[in-house]
Amino acid sequence: MDRGLAYGDGVFRTLQHNGYPYCWGMHYHRLEADCNALGIVCPSADTLLDDMERLQGGKQNSVIKIIVTRGESLRSYAVPPLAQPTRIVIKTAMPQYPDSYFQEGVALHLCETRLARQPRLAGVKHLNRLENVLARMEWTDHQIADGLMIDENGDVIECTSANLFARFGEVMVTPDLSASGVLGVTRERLIQLAPKLDYSVAVKRLRLSELMNADEVLICNSLFGVWQVRQLSSHSWKAGNLAAQFRELLREQDAISA
Amino acid sequence: MDRGLAYGDGVFRTLQHNGYPYCWGMHYHRLEADCNALGIVCPSADTLLDDMERLQGGKQNSVIKIIVTRGESLRSYAVPPLAQPTRIVIKTAMPQYPDSYFQEGVALHLCETRLARQPRLAGVKHLNRLENVLARMEWTDHQIADGLMIDENGDVIECTSANLFARFGEVMVTPDLSASGVLGVTRERLIQLAPKLDYSVAVKRLRLSELMNADEVLICNSLFGVWQVRQLSSHSWKAGNLAAQFRELLREQDAISA
Repeated sequence: MDRGLAYGDGVFRTLQHNGYPYCWGMHYHRLEADCNALGIVCPSADTLLDDMERLQGGKQNSVIKIIVTRGESLRSYAVPPLAQPTRIVIKTAMPQYPDSYFQEGVALHLCETRLARQPRLAGVKHLNRLENVLARMEWTDHQIADGLMIDENGDVIECTSANLFARFGEVMVTPDLSASGVLGVTRERLIQLAPKLDYSVAVKRLRLSELMNADEVLICNSLFGVWQVRQLSSHSWKAGNLAAQFRELLREQDAISA
Repeated sequence: MDRGLAYGDGVFRTLQHNGYPYCWGMHYHRLEADCNALGIVCPSADTLLDDMERLQGGKQNSVIKIIVTRGESLRSYAVPPLAQPTRIVIKTAMPQYPDSYFQEGVALHLCETRLARQPRLAGVKHLNRLENVLARMEWTDHQIADGLMIDENGDVIECTSANLFARFGEVMVTPDLSASGVLGVTRERLIQLAPKLDYSVAVKRLRLSELMNADEVLICNSLFGVWQVRQLSSHSWKAGNLAAQFRELLREQDAISA
């Protein structure tokens, strides 16, 4: 009877853990904001840190997924006034990504499944993820690292599991996520770090045709960090070192926090 | 690790049971169609009938909810090739609706939460129901029976838990659900029954302003059947007997099937 299962009435967060949770402050801030967007009481940071501590034996690199649902209720969309949120904390092994994704960059599939426009839920990492599931079903080729998703207007939004940046000269553009998409923590970090590489950042509408004309394209998430995009369907971009530069900056920041 | 919880990767159906499942053929047909839409293997009708049989002690009137998810997987949107669907069959008490809803009709809230347009998922009763949850959070007044939902274009789609029909003279209009909404079994029954009352049915776009000019409005679902709508926000319709006429036809049909 948990509303997480019945209606996808909850939110989640995925982060790297290696003796301590990477960028915990930012992840917790987003989790709290997402809970607020749905009117769910977010568990305290201390409670979640305790949960992670209990799961984490030793210092091996692993993935922590935190799910917070609105809790149980009767069979009805109506939210019980005293709903007790359910929290689920899962530890899994860190995925093994091919070295080539970091060294040479990645190829993306252009998804036919479009992202719907829903301003009330945009940005929130909620449990209604059927669009991502359907998009991910579109390819099986292991050479494809992720799928690019556009909305019904043909605007570029994100990948199924990553945010995206496109560089045009000195400006890095990342799509406006006010109608679709998920506000990822690594996206936020890159926005903050870009000035260190003398780039300014523009958060705005990005047409698919504009993306094709970008000098460099990269995708990012909290597990793999940053990858250079080399190919999208039949379009390709030449090799570049933008992703490597951001990876270096992220590594420095992580080392300071450790 | 069930994908029903992780991503809302599944479908459901709610029906009345009173010694036998009402309109089982139609419900199973929709469940199967919805599973197909997501690429989930639907459990056989016999398996589900056995499940209901085991839950159902005696002949009391109750509600059966069937959830079918894609099953368990690793933490990834990628669908495992051998995913084993999970089925969950829940029996709950039949809701007690106020007599006045049947005798005098109902008032609806006009929801601010809009339904997104997503043709890939439209019609399917899937587990991604956050829009319905957010819409249902908009009112607490017990005088309100349900909330009317429109899409981003201002087109009328459905209520949070019911489909809708508007009568204009001899024509009954029900919204086209090719971009949003759920194809309900009772909606389908009313479409089939309308000619018995000498009405023709048009499945088409219905603007909110057009709805206001309808002669009569009704909403329907598999639990309460049909209710006459008397009020939507400050707009009201005069008393009518369309809902009562359809209720009578449904009752006759149910009696034949019993």
